[in-house]
Amino acid sequence: MIGADVFGVDPWTVPEQRLQLDLLAHTESVFALSNGHIGLRGNLDEGEPSGHAGTYLNGFYESRPLPHAEAAYGDPESGETMLNVTNGKVLRLLVDDEPFDLRYGTVEHHERTLDLRAGVLRREVRWRSPAGQGVILRTTRLVSFAQRAVAAIRYEVEPYDGPARIVVQSELIANEPGPEASDDPRAAAALVRPLQAEQHHHRELRAGLVHVTRASRLRVSAGMDHVIERPQDVVTSAESEPDLARVTLATELREGETLCFVKLIAYGWSSQRSLPALRDQTDAALAAALRTGWDGLVASQRSYLDEFWDRADVELDGDPALQQALRFALFSVLQSAARAEGRAIPAKGLTGSGYDGHSFWDMETYTLPMLTYVAPTAARDALLWRHSTLALAQARASELRLAGATFPWRTISGHECSGYWPASTAAFHVNADIADAARRYLSATHDETFGRGAALELLVETARLWRSVGHHDAAGYFRIDGVTGPDEYSALAGNNVYTNLMAARNLRAAATLAAQHPRRAARLGVDEEEIAGWRDAADAIVIPFDDELQVTQQSELFTRLRQWDFAATPAEQYPLLLHHPYYSLYSSQVVKQADLVFALYACGDAFSAEQKARDFEYYERITVRDSSLSACVQAIVAAEVGHTELAYEYLAETAFIDLRDLASNTKDGVHLAALAGAWLVAVAGFGGLRDHGDRLEFSPRLPARLTRMSFRLTYRGRRLCVTVGRARARYELLDGDALEIGHEGETVALSAAEHVQTRPLAPPPARAPPAQPSGREPPLGRPQR
Amino acid sequence: MIGADVFGVDPWTVPEQRLQLDLLAHTESVFALSNGHIGLRGNLDEGEPSGHAGTYLNGFYESRPLPHAEAAYGDPESGETMLNVTNGKVLRLLVDDEPFDLRYGTVEHHERTLDLRAGVLRREVRWRSPAGQGVILRTTRLVSFAQRAVAAIRYEVEPYDGPARIVVQSELIANEPGPEASDDPRAAAALVRPLQAEQHHHRELRAGLVHVTRASRLRVSAGMDHVIERPQDVVTSAESEPDLARVTLATELREGETLCFVKLIAYGWSSQRSLPALRDQTDAALAAALRTGWDGLVASQRSYLDEFWDRADVELDGDPALQQALRFALFSVLQSAARAEGRAIPAKGLTGSGYDGHSFWDMETYTLPMLTYVAPTAARDALLWRHSTLALAQARASELRLAGATFPWRTISGHECSGYWPASTAAFHVNADIADAARRYLSATHDETFGRGAALELLVETARLWRSVGHHDAAGYFRIDGVTGPDEYSALAGNNVYTNLMAARNLRAAATLAAQHPRRAARLGVDEEEIAGWRDAADAIVIPFDDELQVTQQSELFTRLRQWDFAATPAEQYPLLLHHPYYSLYSSQVVKQADLVFALYACGDAFSAEQKARDFEYYERITVRDSSLSACVQAIVAAEVGHTELAYEYLAETAFIDLRDLASNTKDGVHLAALAGAWLVAVAGFGGLRDHGDRLEFSPRLPARLTRMSFRLTYRGRRLCVTVGRARARYELLDGDALEIGHEGETVALSAAEHVQTRPLAPPPARAPPAQPSGREPPLGRPQR
Repeated sequence: MIGADVFGVDPWTVPEQRLQLDLLAHTESVFALSNGHIGLRGNLDEGEPSGHAGTYLNGFYESRPLPHAEAAYGDPESGETMLNVTNGKVLRLLVDDEPFDLRYGTVEHHERTLDLRAGVLRREVRWRSPAGQGVILRTTRLVSFAQRAVAAIRYEVEPYDGPARIVVQSELIANEPGPEASDDPRAAAALVRPLQAEQHHHRELRAGLVHVTRASRLRVSAGMDHVIERPQDVVTSAESEPDLARVTLATELREGETLCFVKLIAYGWSSQRSLPALRDQTDAALAAALRTGWDGLVASQRSYLDEFWDRADVELDGDPALQQALRFALFSVLQSAARAEGRAIPAKGLTGSGYDGHSFWDMETYTLPMLTYVAPTAARDALLWRHSTLALAQARASELRLAGATFPWRTISGHECSGYWPASTAAFHVNADIADAARRYLSATHDETFGRGAALELLVETARLWRSVGHHDAAGYFRIDGVTGPDEYSALAGNNVYTNLMAARNLRAAATLAAQHPRRAARLGVDEEEIAGWRDAADAIVIPFDDELQVTQQSELFTRLRQWDFAATPAEQYPLLLHHPYYSLYSSQVVKQADLVFALYACGDAFSAEQKARDFEYYERITVRDSSLSACVQAIVAAEVGHTELAYEYLAETAFIDLRDLASNTKDGVHLAALAGAWLVAVAGFGGLRDHGDRLEFSPRLPARLTRMSFRLTYRGRRLCVTVGRARARYELLDGDALEIGHEGETVALSAAEHVQTRPLAPPPARAPPAQPSGREPPLGRPQR
Repeated sequence: MIGADVFGVDPWTVPEQRLQLDLLAHTESVFALSNGHIGLRGNLDEGEPSGHAGTYLNGFYESRPLPHAEAAYGDPESGETMLNVTNGKVLRLLVDDEPFDLRYGTVEHHERTLDLRAGVLRREVRWRSPAGQGVILRTTRLVSFAQRAVAAIRYEVEPYDGPARIVVQSELIANEPGPEASDDPRAAAALVRPLQAEQHHHRELRAGLVHVTRASRLRVSAGMDHVIERPQDVVTSAESEPDLARVTLATELREGETLCFVKLIAYGWSSQRSLPALRDQTDAALAAALRTGWDGLVASQRSYLDEFWDRADVELDGDPALQQALRFALFSVLQSAARAEGRAIPAKGLTGSGYDGHSFWDMETYTLPMLTYVAPTAARDALLWRHSTLALAQARASELRLAGATFPWRTISGHECSGYWPASTAAFHVNADIADAARRYLSATHDETFGRGAALELLVETARLWRSVGHHDAAGYFRIDGVTGPDEYSALAGNNVYTNLMAARNLRAAATLAAQHPRRAARLGVDEEEIAGWRDAADAIVIPFDDELQVTQQSELFTRLRQWDFAATPAEQYPLLLHHPYYSLYSSQVVKQADLVFALYACGDAFSAEQKARDFEYYERITVRDSSLSACVQAIVAAEVGHTELAYEYLAETAFIDLRDLASNTKDGVHLAALAGAWLVAVAGFGGLRDHGDRLEFSPRLPARLTRMSFRLTYRGRRLCVTVGRARARYELLDGDALEIGHEGETVALSAAEHVQTRPLAPPPARAPPAQPSGREPPLGRPQR
């Protein structure tokens, strides 16, 4: 955790008050810019010092061997690692004879600001060189939402306390040395200088490098161009070599004079396209950016974000820091997904190399539920990426001797890259999560093209999987044995409730959609018998219940397992998986992350209100939240069952995960699922949104600290604004056709004529808040009032 | 599987009729000689061609990294691999200008014979060189049971069809190139030229090499000396270099003249002793062997084996091939253990590099039950080896945050070397198996020194483990969750019956022994409360039972799992683990090897006869015997519940495992547990021996094919001979004090005065034999009548 004073509180920006070199890796993640296609970590312009240099292209990876001490059938033999590609951010500055380097000389002022409305990172530095020469440096960096392949930096340097010779070297650097990505020397070897130079070129102020990876054979082209605004008499030169392209600008400035130029950077990559084609693509992107110009790029960035906030903003009155954190969260999710267009959304977006750049179930389960209601085309694009990997998922199912398709637990390309099968192959729920994301997007958009195409295939193939993973027992129940649910401190259990309920929903949704598109379904080989088989299995699904405790079991026999001795577990033994063997965790009642509690939210229609309250209380006292995926789900269910203040604490835990570095690893990238989870807590927790059936249902309730909350949703072509006050909820149809929604189960009709309705809030059930395991209370406690 | 004609049938030898080069790797394992300390594979004297060259020293290994795709807390980071040490078997022969090599020229006759009474491997070859010169080669090889550090070869060569120039190069070769031992390049790298040369020396006909391993820092000294019998005029020379020592004998022989000499080989190894000390040790062993001489070595070998057979032989009338196989099995077990003396008994003995030379639970569970009753000092030595690793097992338990000690699933030194925890760390039953072997040895010998020393520590520390692995549930039952039983097609299940019953026995045995030695126990910190806690847990142990099926569950919920579709599983998909993911195996009712059925035998006192029959039938139809450990256990229970003919078929499966290569991997070494299992089937299956309490109980029954079976046992200082005929059993006290035994529950008193008693056999229960899974019938079927 880092202090609350590292960043200033502001509703629309994240300002860093002063530079702390020991937090560089952290701030590089927070200040990363991305449009979902290109990601630039917030490395300092001058390249050094840095925590982890990082420039990422969505989907660009190298393959590496996955070693197994005792290999088994079905173990993936190779993994994928997102690469740090050619770095175009670097602008080395020489002031007289001194390199501009914040580790030397005197930093008189240093300010960086991430602007959430402008979509830029601004920096202003006053620095005095060891020789005493002062310079003011002002840079503004953006990764364009409007022009996917383009990033740009406006660079301004001005001497003070006398004139200065100024040289700026604007570079493209490939194969930067980085930290070893793995303790397996073979994997590390594969990732040392992973880019093989194919071509380098330069002409006037433009230069470029083309590389290809050794094993995955992906080709990347990086190019840069420059527009000098002033002064007139800059001497320039350009050069290039295999791993370096450099444009040098030299001038002499009097005090008050400014060197000012714009660096345009463009990337292209492909597994197919030839070197000349790829180089042309990059040069064309640069040509387009040149034509747009800096002001045009800035203006289009602003207008893209204005539109986003208009659809997505959540306003909170009463907690400015939380308001800022929530907007940072929304902005981060947007950055990860906006222009991913047919590529995955990795767990860290493109902000760091954590988890090797892989995507997990988080995408469909945390990120897409937000995007579906605020940026549905981004949700669709991500689902289309999943669908594009269907053939790989079918092949994987076939390898595992199962029917249908089984999607990877972690991947970049769509190939399974997991090295530990009990927490990957066995976590079949990822397939139901994908199916549910498709179902949700379809329900929220009525996107019929998607419905009869990708959605139908995804649902049918995952339904087929479930029929082969599960089986009927002698009593006619449909069982799913030996699988792993969301809780990674359990594995290979029978009838995990989350998995079973999500599988049942998957089977029913497939049946419904196939029945809606019978001819399309028939082309996939679906007949009425198969559909009936899906419905039958869904209806017969096993939900294990402990009759004595009156508690739903996370999985069969879970409540009989050993109690974990929390009192004897010191704080430094968390996260537990670094200090205890899986054996102990799996055979004990200790929960890493919401699992049964996730089912209470995601499949809440399967539980009574009383049962939810009892189950929440039971699992709350054994859930240690060693995963950043947990707090937001606990918050949503806490809010529903009446623990509004606890929900508020968990909202803080999920919203501040990166700004406060609560998991101590934001340096590896931001926690996208947890950040999307902050939106979920606001909307599904305090807004009480549920979307199980054919209309949106709301049960709003506000924690004591907040005086008002307002959020916007896009739903079936309408835009809605929901405002929750202390006593009443206000529903406004901003545009679009008439719509019925639910408020506490009551129908509320909205139309152009009656576009605003208000309703009184229902009093939340009064319940004493449950306890967390000893030492695992929410880390920020109750935010100060 | 190989043909029944590869070896001839003979009661006391294993003769190979003709050389088949494609079976070399197989016959090298069958013809391996070992005394438990040194192991020489049956490589041809001339070194080439060979399947796998192999010379092993018990306990001599190299460490190597164990890679993990996703490492977890408690994963072992390094493994151990038994090394092929300096090869002293090689005697290259040059006939005129031609190397004697069976791949060239003409093999006119080739015969190898393993003599089970003499303890030697004899070879006779008539070979004509490509140039037409004939030679007769006769060699006899032994690894001395009497002189642990010594092996010897008597070598005789004689020309025919004319005189010949003869050169023999007798060698020691270190770092022989071998097959890659691993697909992990790091591990393979650690094992390429693993021996670092430290010294080489030669003088007259003696020479030696000293090497040390890189990582494990074990030092090995190999030496050789020669005694030339004839002719007089052999010209000799010696030389040595780091990886090669060579003594050359050159002569010219007329037809009918013979070059005849003896090569003596000695080995020593140590992790502690200095190079000079180790070289001296080897030279001293050579000096002793020189003094004993060839005839002396042969005579002591014979006398050692005479004594062994007198204690251990099992006679079968009616099936000569099975008689031979059974004696080969007994001989193999003896070879693995006779002089192991404080070292482990590896799963393959010292006959091949399979399983990296590791020892498993097989040692205590299969090999020691035989040795306890026929060679108790070897059983004691093996248990003392286990005890010598207690500190490592305590450290491992502590690492896993458990109490007491947990022994490794696979190891050479005592360190856990497993790479896959669900089938190793979680297979805690190994600890109960060790405890039970100690209990059994103690009960069968009344070895009080062992009882109050090693046995007490082993039982106390394993009992403590069980108290921390298991826990009481709310209803007061003692549960053991998330563990893996013997069946490796199941894992991480609750209340595996084999594990639970063996743990309960472990707890009770610890309580009993601690109560017998209260002061010794107190020194281990055992008090009455702890003892009471052991008894309490043992009495409260959970035994899951399916009330509807009236079947004991292998582990909780096992009978609810998916049925395996055996009809749809083609023969080439066995063993299943090479063709199906663990997920499918673990979540289905398919059993690799006897597990619940093992409990029916090992803890048979916990089941009624009717229940055993019902359980056997249930599990028989889902047990695929993909492990060589299975058939013998199924045979024993089959015999008990009345399926005598099926037991006979399974006896053949276990006894012929290597002579017929039934598992297709005898090339990697013989299957020691299965071979010991053949003895168990004879004695516990057809003899019906059980040793649960304080006397030996017999329930003899004979399969139709056999007319008589006789076996000998050593028990509490007595020797017994049990003979089972078609109608009666005969019990004879060969020597020692009076003794009571049980026959079908009836007390039979034997004494010096009444040293023979006979009793009628009980009629076996008449039951229809159960079916095996489709295609998994016993592979040899019913042996021909």
